[in-house]
Amino acid sequence: MTSRTLHDTPLALTMGDAAGIGPEIIVRSLAVHDAGRCVVVGSAEVMRRALTQTGLLLPVAVLDAPDDPAPPNCVPVWQPPGLADGLATLAMGQVQAAAGRAAACCIEAAARLALAGTVAGIVTAPIHKEALAASGVDFPGHTEMLQALAGAPAVRMMLANDELRVVLVTIHVALRRAIELLDFDAVLQTLRIVQASARQWGIPQPRIGVAGLNPHAGEGGLFGDEERLFIAPAIAAAVAEGIDARGPFAPDTVFMRARNAPGHPGEFDVVVAMTHDHGLIPVKYLGVEQGVNVTLGLPFVRTSPDHGTAFDIAGRGIADARSFQAALAMARRLAV
Amino acid sequence: MTSRTLHDTPLALTMGDAAGIGPEIIVRSLAVHDAGRCVVVGSAEVMRRALTQTGLLLPVAVLDAPDDPAPPNCVPVWQPPGLADGLATLAMGQVQAAAGRAAACCIEAAARLALAGTVAGIVTAPIHKEALAASGVDFPGHTEMLQALAGAPAVRMMLANDELRVVLVTIHVALRRAIELLDFDAVLQTLRIVQASARQWGIPQPRIGVAGLNPHAGEGGLFGDEERLFIAPAIAAAVAEGIDARGPFAPDTVFMRARNAPGHPGEFDVVVAMTHDHGLIPVKYLGVEQGVNVTLGLPFVRTSPDHGTAFDIAGRGIADARSFQAALAMARRLAV
Repeated sequence: MTSRTLHDTPLALTMGDAAGIGPEIIVRSLAVHDAGRCVVVGSAEVMRRALTQTGLLLPVAVLDAPDDPAPPNCVPVWQPPGLADGLATLAMGQVQAAAGRAAACCIEAAARLALAGTVAGIVTAPIHKEALAASGVDFPGHTEMLQALAGAPAVRMMLANDELRVVLVTIHVALRRAIELLDFDAVLQTLRIVQASARQWGIPQPRIGVAGLNPHAGEGGLFGDEERLFIAPAIAAAVAEGIDARGPFAPDTVFMRARNAPGHPGEFDVVVAMTHDHGLIPVKYLGVEQGVNVTLGLPFVRTSPDHGTAFDIAGRGIADARSFQAALAMARRLAV
Repeated sequence: MTSRTLHDTPLALTMGDAAGIGPEIIVRSLAVHDAGRCVVVGSAEVMRRALTQTGLLLPVAVLDAPDDPAPPNCVPVWQPPGLADGLATLAMGQVQAAAGRAAACCIEAAARLALAGTVAGIVTAPIHKEALAASGVDFPGHTEMLQALAGAPAVRMMLANDELRVVLVTIHVALRRAIELLDFDAVLQTLRIVQASARQWGIPQPRIGVAGLNPHAGEGGLFGDEERLFIAPAIAAAVAEGIDARGPFAPDTVFMRARNAPGHPGEFDVVVAMTHDHGLIPVKYLGVEQGVNVTLGLPFVRTSPDHGTAFDIAGRGIADARSFQAALAMARRLAV
């Protein structure tokens, strides 16, 4: 192995669920001339099928090692050990255990490559929760699975587009339960993870705006006391550690204030939101095409598009690849 | 009284808290040539002070009756019985019981005029909750006060801008408490109020998108059961009454889908949101300048700007009147 810069290190693109739109949006993204060096961790026959579905004329190059050089203008594929054969015969748009098992195999292999530094980061195409479960893999999604594979103590989900970065304290639980899960430690840990991750984004001292939980951030206790009881204290503790955290601010205006658009410089580099939908409503409001999901707290870079397998349109060659392309570009930036 | 069309009927503009930006934004709005027929229900001396603060050269015309004709290019003021003298000597930017009492006097008088049909609707300038309370008026805000004055059984807050109309099932309570307040009746009543009000907007059969409460609208019960237990049943009951209600949809994408912008026709005419911030985050995301608050369920039209008294800048002549102007334009449209 020759010495090389990080820029030469490929990004791993995991195939995702073979019955979903993942393979299509991967080949569409690789057909763009500025995709940079990538390796698909997946099945060559599935990628060939996706090329047929999309009508793209790129060749598939099957690599012996994930960091082997690949010819230009191709779809470079590395098939991890243990990946099943016959995946291109799976029906499109259906929950299938074999598709879930193959998706998990690719994610595990990519995580090992990232931990070893063989790839500079991972961009994951969508998987289907039920297919994963049907294959006996008991994780609600990528984020939890990668956390376990990497042995990371805590991770957080960040959603970002051109205007806004949002990090969520709680994610996939009932709103009632999310409120119960919130406490001083959850908020402070989020702020620490943001601070540690932001160096990757080239912002060593990010201005972090913290959204409250309640209307008007509690209106001095009239509309709830979580802000007073632990959100404000967690912010104060973070500030004492040198983190530039501010708030808690009213949820309904903090995102507007953070929005970074032409003629409207944002007041914050990132907003920490207490709940899934407080954070995702503003990120998605202008459209999901450009939204990217970034997992913070892992020992490697991981991004993904902000959508699922779209079984309803899978295989028809019409899936929109913009969010995956944005995820790829974001991973490239973060992995420098 | 001569017969006249509704278009000739003035809109009442209540002065709001005399120590806040209300008087300024009223005179700024009346200086715009398309303000249409209005009458300020308030104090002539306070409006004269606002003219001085803003440097506008309009005269004040004190009317004997609220629907008396006023000369063009003036600030027509009707002073309701019982309004105190000396209000222009109140300090700017401070909580004062006298300011709260005067604001309440104007709101009560305007509500009586609206109930009698003397005015076509009310546009309220901001009041200060603490000043109102200090004067012994025990309402958290305009909405609750107008509901009581009108004897309306149920009202709902709608926020609207050029892209989006959002109606809230719950408003100024802790998020924890909002979840407890939600039930079948609260959701169905909201849908009925939207349906009844939308005729005023010229949309007799509005397409109502209903946001869920939980992430992914509960993900089939995995992330909460309020959708299954009462939100979906309330939608079904509304549909059975002929209301075009749809959902519940994932909160993080329903607003994006409803957004009505050039090249992006909205899927819904209005979105019903379960909580204050689910609804207000997207309405405010692009800026509060154009946001208008509309009270639904009252027997008359009432709108207001989407901001408060801004005591920090009151009296300096720099307050942004765009939201008040948008509220005025909205009241004019709704009152036709």
